Amino acid sequence: MDLYGKDLICTQDWEVDELEAVLDLAAKMKRDRFSSAWTSLLEHKTFLMFFYNPSVRTRQSFEAAATDLGGHAQYLEPKAMRLKTEKTAGETIEDAAQVMGRYAAGLGIRMLEDKIGTYGEAEDLLREYAKWSTIPIISMAHDKYHPCQGLADVMGWAEWFGAGPGRRLDMGLLEGKKLLLTWGHGALARSWSSVQEALLIGSRFGMDVSLAHPEGYDLGPQVVEWTQENCDANGRSFEITHDPRAGYDGAHVVYSRHWMSPNAYQGGEFQKQEEIEKALQYPEWIADSEKMALTDDAIFTHPMPVDRNHEVTDGVASGPRSCIYDVAENRLHAQKALLALVMGNL
Amino acid sequence: MDLYGKDLICTQDWEVDELEAVLDLAAKMKRDRFSSAWTSLLEHKTFLMFFYNPSVRTRQSFEAAATDLGGHAQYLEPKAMRLKTEKTAGETIEDAAQVMGRYAAGLGIRMLEDKIGTYGEAEDLLREYAKWSTIPIISMAHDKYHPCQGLADVMGWAEWFGAGPGRRLDMGLLEGKKLLLTWGHGALARSWSSVQEALLIGSRFGMDVSLAHPEGYDLGPQVVEWTQENCDANGRSFEITHDPRAGYDGAHVVYSRHWMSPNAYQGGEFQKQEEIEKALQYPEWIADSEKMALTDDAIFTHPMPVDRNHEVTDGVASGPRSCIYDVAENRLHAQKALLALVMGNL
Amino acid sequence: MDLYGKDLICTQDWEVDELEAVLDLAAKMKRDRFSSAWTSLLEHKTFLMFFYNPSVRTRQSFEAAATDLGGHAQYLEPKAMRLKTEKTAGETIEDAAQVMGRYAAGLGIRMLEDKIGTYGEAEDLLREYAKWSTIPIISMAHDKYHPCQGLADVMGWAEWFGAGPGRRLDMGLLEGKKLLLTWGHGALARSWSSVQEALLIGSRFGMDVSLAHPEGYDLGPQVVEWTQENCDANGRSFEITHDPRAGYDGAHVVYSRHWMSPNAYQGGEFQKQEEIEKALQYPEWIADSEKMALTDDAIFTHPMPVDRNHEVTDGVASGPRSCIYDVAENRLHAQKALLALVMGNL
Repeated sequence: MDLYGKDLICTQDWEVDELEAVLDLAAKMKRDRFSSAWTSLLEHKTFLMFFYNPSVRTRQSFEAAATDLGGHAQYLEPKAMRLKTEKTAGETIEDAAQVMGRYAAGLGIRMLEDKIGTYGEAEDLLREYAKWSTIPIISMAHDKYHPCQGLADVMGWAEWFGAGPGRRLDMGLLEGKKLLLTWGHGALARSWSSVQEALLIGSRFGMDVSLAHPEGYDLGPQVVEWTQENCDANGRSFEITHDPRAGYDGAHVVYSRHWMSPNAYQGGEFQKQEEIEKALQYPEWIADSEKMALTDDAIFTHPMPVDRNHEVTDGVASGPRSCIYDVAENRLHAQKALLALVMGNL
Repeated sequence: MDLYGKDLICTQDWEVDELEAVLDLAAKMKRDRFSSAWTSLLEHKTFLMFFYNPSVRTRQSFEAAATDLGGHAQYLEPKAMRLKTEKTAGETIEDAAQVMGRYAAGLGIRMLEDKIGTYGEAEDLLREYAKWSTIPIISMAHDKYHPCQGLADVMGWAEWFGAGPGRRLDMGLLEGKKLLLTWGHGALARSWSSVQEALLIGSRFGMDVSLAHPEGYDLGPQVVEWTQENCDANGRSFEITHDPRAGYDGAHVVYSRHWMSPNAYQGGEFQKQEEIEKALQYPEWIADSEKMALTDDAIFTHPMPVDRNHEVTDGVASGPRSCIYDVAENRLHAQKALLALVMGNL
Repeated sequence: MDLYGKDLICTQDWEVDELEAVLDLAAKMKRDRFSSAWTSLLEHKTFLMFFYNPSVRTRQSFEAAATDLGGHAQYLEPKAMRLKTEKTAGETIEDAAQVMGRYAAGLGIRMLEDKIGTYGEAEDLLREYAKWSTIPIISMAHDKYHPCQGLADVMGWAEWFGAGPGRRLDMGLLEGKKLLLTWGHGALARSWSSVQEALLIGSRFGMDVSLAHPEGYDLGPQVVEWTQENCDANGRSFEITHDPRAGYDGAHVVYSRHWMSPNAYQGGEFQKQEEIEKALQYPEWIADSEKMALTDDAIFTHPMPVDRNHEVTDGVASGPRSCIYDVAENRLHAQKALLALVMGNL
């Protein structure tokens, strides 16, 4: 298997055994973080990071990943970059991408819903870069997907079902486990990227999937369709419920996270305030100990930052079955493995 | 002595022999900046820098310190970070701090008076990070203290009283020397962090201390109390004067710097304009050659940037007894030694 | 030849053989980018980059250059820096520059026309830094010049007239070639820095030069005078025309780029909107295939970003004689060679 130069925009674009290759290497890197086996893999290499949206964990973990591997990540805020649009003069992505490949070994892009006017625009921009670029394009979260979060998620869940973080990783442990992905109320109008990625990658690894949200909070039809296909291919179940409690029954992984409604874009603008007001109307949508008691001793997972006491109670988020910090840590290891495989010469 | 993992929020929290351990290593690092003895101490390690306030020298010297030691410093502007407050949704410091310890080897924070509503809030934030963090928290200047400036100050003064910058460092040379810390007029409404740190660390190292300022420019009561205790413990004198000339008599170190009044915060807001107007009313508060002639051939020190011809005349700031550039240079060496000791494995 | 510590503010300040030394090393570095012969030349060294204006390619190529050489470039936005002016309190360049030399091995500055009130102010700031600094000052583009773009330009042209990019570089191939530097219409009100540098460095290397622009778009008199002197010294011709087609006749290099008029500064302010409106009035000023047919099979060059279909048609910019990506790539190699020579110890 040779992953050199491969883009990662959504895990659905990759084969399961390719994803497993990343996760296997991530597990090895986690066991011995500064081994000389990897500290020179990106020596003198540059990873460009375009943060259209700011970030804390994504920035820290990608930049640390490059440093760990002996390379350097450039933090770029492309507000400085005048791209050509239908209305304004500027540079084409063709020109921009072709030059970046002369300087760098990879390009990460983060662009969320408040930087675009219609769902899918950020995805289009990443795919346009991928079309012209000679170096791999990596999503660091965009309007549709967040593939590195997805890798960190399943790695963390498998660790918790096995011998624990930092031990031998057996992705087969996810087969037949039930993932509840449930909407949580809150005041942050959050992206679909992490939750959509979780549906896709969880179902790829053989989990039963239950998706729960109030009426009017549907996710993207393509994602729902792919999740169904993934579950069908593995002989697993996929259900959608609008009851805040039903999905907890027998769940092994509970993922409670707020996301915005499909009406968030109106007239080409992101309606943040309306979304926040609407989302606070459903206080029963919270992961609490009473609902967790319905599960099969489920672990609680979240991509962070956690909106405590909206999405989840303190008791659950800080409880003994919360894997949130371990999953967050895995961002580093999964991204290191990814960068090493697509930018290095492994 | 093992300083691994130790926070540095104020030098008063550390033992004198711990501070000396940092300064001894800093002196060695200064003599041979790129010796292989230290260029790998932080290899592949990440130091996170949170700049709530921008900076020139602090940024340059901390980032260069990490580079010198083989590591990498991430420059982060946490405006991107939504922390939970009483009024707004966001992430808890508990969550933020616990994850950062999975990625990085240390965390520096800079937060000055214009980013807070009440004196002490920045200190509280640093102490909250320190409570939850598994990695050391280092103040890069906050509303109360600036420990790395303090280390650079006393290192520079001891060098000037000894064989000179870059030579053997004897901190004992500060014993019995008189430090005049005097307010200077100006137009910049400056922080208490550097001057309060200088009072504390100067008095720890056995100096007599004279604090001079106009009525109404008192520093923090806790700092005044600790300075008195430090002087008492060393059998040295501490005096406060409101005369712009009296403190110069017999001084060995003159530190003239503007600082804001204790009335700078009103109703939870920093009153910058009022402070500037008030501070320009005292033109006699300036270090000039006539006042310097009253001293015992004192050196002139300042944490920079110098507000020339307000705080000090050009003649004194650029004169033969000015140690300002040497002290500024010591920021690099002292911070390198500090990072090596608390983040490396020395 | 020893270039250690030498400032580069304009190529006209350097001897031709000094420029050739940079280009020779750049060609070697290009042939074997990560050779151990250069990957440690700036090990543990810091290059400070002051971006008063943001940038994409300049930032990426300088930061990657430092990384390639084993060093680290700090990205600094000096809006954080309060410099003393006639009207405001702040730090003198004398103080700022003297301290930076204690931390870093070199300082790059980018400051374009919209950050100043009068043509030449950015040049003055660079020269003031150079006066006080103990480390080399490098222009990363300022109001008057862009020396690293100039180096990349002539390197790319010579490659195209020789055995091609990445092969042996023979700068003598530029002798007697005709450079057409022509204004292009557009909507971006662009700097004089790149085009003025191209006139100077092209004429230094023995090219015939034709400068073409509409009436009212004169470049700086000093640059025109120096270009004439350079051409005279080499026995080459220099002409200025206001005809959009005349200069193409027999040209070997066509450089079509928009630039603002000398009236862009009025009353100490940069009149961006007026400039853009005026510049769109000349649609005949575009490099197209019909004009390119008048040349001696000329290559098309541009410093990027290209304003396609204003400055040049897509057909020419993406055509078989376009060297724009190769020139852009050469920014990296030329800057690596420069940094190695003035900051390293070669």
